[in-house]
Amino acid sequence: MPRHWTEVVAEKRAIRDKKLIKSYGEDTPSDPRILAAKDIQDLTTLLETREITCEAVVLAHIAKAKEAHQRTNCLTEVCFDVALNQASELDAFQQEHGRLKGPLHGVPVSLKDQFNLEGLDSTLGYVGRAFHPADSDCVLVKVLQQLGAVIIAKTNLPQSILWGETDNPLWGLTTHPMNPEFTPGGSSGGEGALLALSGSALGWGTDIGGSIRLPAHMNGLWGFKPSSGRFSYEGVAVSQDGQHQIPSVVGPMARTLNTLTLASKAVIETECWRLDPQLPPMPWREDVFQRYSQKPLVFGVMVDDGTVKVHPPIERVFKELCEKLVAAGHELVPWNTSLNSDCIKIQDDHYIVDGGEDIRRDVAAGGEPFMPHVQSLVERGPAISVYEYWQLNKRKKAVQAAYHNMWNAMRSSSGRPVDVLLVPTAPHTAIPHRTLRYPGYTKLFNFLDYTALSFPAGKASKALDPPSPVEYEPRNSMDAWNWGLYDIEKMDGYSVGLQIVGRRMEEEKVLGVAQQVQKML
Amino acid sequence: MPRHWTEVVAEKRAIRDKKLIKSYGEDTPSDPRILAAKDIQDLTTLLETREITCEAVVLAHIAKAKEAHQRTNCLTEVCFDVALNQASELDAFQQEHGRLKGPLHGVPVSLKDQFNLEGLDSTLGYVGRAFHPADSDCVLVKVLQQLGAVIIAKTNLPQSILWGETDNPLWGLTTHPMNPEFTPGGSSGGEGALLALSGSALGWGTDIGGSIRLPAHMNGLWGFKPSSGRFSYEGVAVSQDGQHQIPSVVGPMARTLNTLTLASKAVIETECWRLDPQLPPMPWREDVFQRYSQKPLVFGVMVDDGTVKVHPPIERVFKELCEKLVAAGHELVPWNTSLNSDCIKIQDDHYIVDGGEDIRRDVAAGGEPFMPHVQSLVERGPAISVYEYWQLNKRKKAVQAAYHNMWNAMRSSSGRPVDVLLVPTAPHTAIPHRTLRYPGYTKLFNFLDYTALSFPAGKASKALDPPSPVEYEPRNSMDAWNWGLYDIEKMDGYSVGLQIVGRRMEEEKVLGVAQQVQKML
Repeated sequence: MPRHWTEVVAEKRAIRDKKLIKSYGEDTPSDPRILAAKDIQDLTTLLETREITCEAVVLAHIAKAKEAHQRTNCLTEVCFDVALNQASELDAFQQEHGRLKGPLHGVPVSLKDQFNLEGLDSTLGYVGRAFHPADSDCVLVKVLQQLGAVIIAKTNLPQSILWGETDNPLWGLTTHPMNPEFTPGGSSGGEGALLALSGSALGWGTDIGGSIRLPAHMNGLWGFKPSSGRFSYEGVAVSQDGQHQIPSVVGPMARTLNTLTLASKAVIETECWRLDPQLPPMPWREDVFQRYSQKPLVFGVMVDDGTVKVHPPIERVFKELCEKLVAAGHELVPWNTSLNSDCIKIQDDHYIVDGGEDIRRDVAAGGEPFMPHVQSLVERGPAISVYEYWQLNKRKKAVQAAYHNMWNAMRSSSGRPVDVLLVPTAPHTAIPHRTLRYPGYTKLFNFLDYTALSFPAGKASKALDPPSPVEYEPRNSMDAWNWGLYDIEKMDGYSVGLQIVGRRMEEEKVLGVAQQVQKML
Repeated sequence: MPRHWTEVVAEKRAIRDKKLIKSYGEDTPSDPRILAAKDIQDLTTLLETREITCEAVVLAHIAKAKEAHQRTNCLTEVCFDVALNQASELDAFQQEHGRLKGPLHGVPVSLKDQFNLEGLDSTLGYVGRAFHPADSDCVLVKVLQQLGAVIIAKTNLPQSILWGETDNPLWGLTTHPMNPEFTPGGSSGGEGALLALSGSALGWGTDIGGSIRLPAHMNGLWGFKPSSGRFSYEGVAVSQDGQHQIPSVVGPMARTLNTLTLASKAVIETECWRLDPQLPPMPWREDVFQRYSQKPLVFGVMVDDGTVKVHPPIERVFKELCEKLVAAGHELVPWNTSLNSDCIKIQDDHYIVDGGEDIRRDVAAGGEPFMPHVQSLVERGPAISVYEYWQLNKRKKAVQAAYHNMWNAMRSSSGRPVDVLLVPTAPHTAIPHRTLRYPGYTKLFNFLDYTALSFPAGKASKALDPPSPVEYEPRNSMDAWNWGLYDIEKMDGYSVGLQIVGRRMEEEKVLGVAQQVQKML
């Protein structure tokens, strides 16, 4: 007879907690240069010159990860023992060969609890997936380890993944580092909290509607959602696995742009398509990256998606950046929002084509209750037929083509085509738990399978932004809900993320543009 | 009240036939150099040096196309008037600018009746699609015209497309150029017959199970099935549109390898992804093409797929080529067939996931009868649910990964990895109508989304091959059926095609290898 779900939860958490209380002597203060390292390049430089050891780097991050977890409940599976073993192997490697193993040598890495790591569960926040350890590493893990990275832990996510916050019956609620009443965003919310508190140097999440970018935005991080096919999804567990019309994608999260860029480049340069036949053999295009790091740009700017107006701090940060862009000689083009609602509608229809069967089965397998947002998702409507599913896909492709043609037709006032878009990541900063409802600013680019980078562009500020409430006539109930969330007293000091968006497979372009934008922040 | 389907057919054919009897003075013998031109490069050289005009080139091919049609019933829509207008515009362009418009300047092109051409139907062989002209050109047509190509006609295909022969109630049966009792193969069978009879210099077909390669094989042509995403499918009508788990792909067919290579390169170099967001931005990799045109190779060889044994002429031609490859210094590795049946099984399941609804709707729209093979397809079973469809896709991806890993693990006796596979295109040559049942040698590579080129490697020969029947104990009913088809008296002189197969998106590699193979033929 299967155990009650609460027993499974209790046992699973007890195992984690036991690992978390084990001491590795990490309470001894670490070399201050380790946590002062701005990005992974600083870390590997310290390692290369042998000023520090991998073991010290990993230990320092374990200490921080433990603190982060205590504060936010961000960890699920931990593998500190294995990580420390790997660290000392890397130190031995360097001792023996006189060089680093690879560009990510000694970099402590965390993974959203979807990536298969041999011997650990990939729970997706489902009780029924507990105690079903993966029998091999996913392709991304293999590649990261080949590059020298050290995986230290896996991080929390919402039941079903399909939500912009982070809570599930198995691992519980993850909170924002700055406020236990606030969400860190989701679904890669555990990563968001852990990275913001320096518990990891590089995180990997997934994104099918904003799940990398929303926690990046809310925690002052850089989060990169590439197009599908750029990073391997092989061996990564996911809700609604087998659906590929709106692909979930893998991408990195970090405290600095340079970390994202180095990690993206290093992983792509391993030619992962040799391990994963789902990836097109698309090499890292350094020439594109360099070109867009320097050339004068044309930005399509969309501060308002036409459905939900952003809060005043978002608008202010957006406009401040626009002014700097113009001052630096870039051109801005107001973006056309007329296709947005078609995109969102078709994307929303895709989430429920199976009538919630996939999620319902996973929840039934563990016997735990549905989270309210999951319940409403699976109850939204009956499954459609395969034939209807194909019709939906045809509509998707037609709108994707229309959007593409619209972009092609757009010209700046000097007659140049648009390079990238500048768009808010969300219509609000971090907000209280269970209040996130509108990821329209992010999921638009999942629908289009575009490349989108969320970067920390500024902060909400009591001094600069209007006191709440602000008079505004909402366009619709979602807009009204969002506007009602504005509370500058509580939001003061929270990060504001914006997105740089390129078209399909334009990762090098977007990272190159980000180099220029970063200098203005 | 809708008309009876036979009336629609009569009217549609009458319009075509009227166009076909119109005389353009093409009965006057053309410059013999035009039809003697081996490939499109020879044609454009003649044009470039102004020894002939585009108009003469197009006229000569119109004459041949008419003959081909009379012999095989290969044409559906014809656009000779438009083609001749374009030809004289190209002549004027050259006159004015002193250069050709592009690398396909003046090349007469034919298209399977799926590619949208403004003002003409894309019928897919369905009566219900007659008299619904396309309102714009597909991306491929736009690109071809930009390169200077002249589209002269569209060609026949089977009802539903999903068959290896060419017959439908709307346009009727297309026959083999050498024998009216034999099929030219399918589904791009109209292209096969037209090209074999020099009615076009370059054809474009589609392939979801062998539909480019089977007619290439049966008609002594070169047929190229790329991976999905290499050539645009935007604006191309297709059965089961919206299903993308097993993608139908667009590819060229021609009488020479050089034509295929030049056309593939020219089209890819237009950067079609700027017009079609479904394509990854994968440029033409000339370095790869050149490298594989020269380097010593390792071939994985599979003369028998383990399910249906090939006829003696196929085996002989295959083995003759193997000997030449070894003599030229290449290595051969016997290929592992253990995953083939899993691939085929999952592919077959994919064809009927909608329970035949898509095809049934198209047939019902016109009111015509089902062709027997279509009937059996739509009656094979009920639709599955979207959730089950996803499970099927997961199985597909798992087997694709297993196949990929198997390839990675394979080594030649000298320890080198396998570059490409050498595989028969079919277990038989051209055969009588309504006897084709087993496209397993081609559809395996649709399942894997690999790059596969069928090339004419030899001919069946009464003098060299054993008299029929040949004693053989079949493994299964399909094998028995195929073996029963062997009749060397009737097959004498028919072409034998073989395939060079690379992995996903390895078009340049496969075309490069073909350069080396061609020299041995």
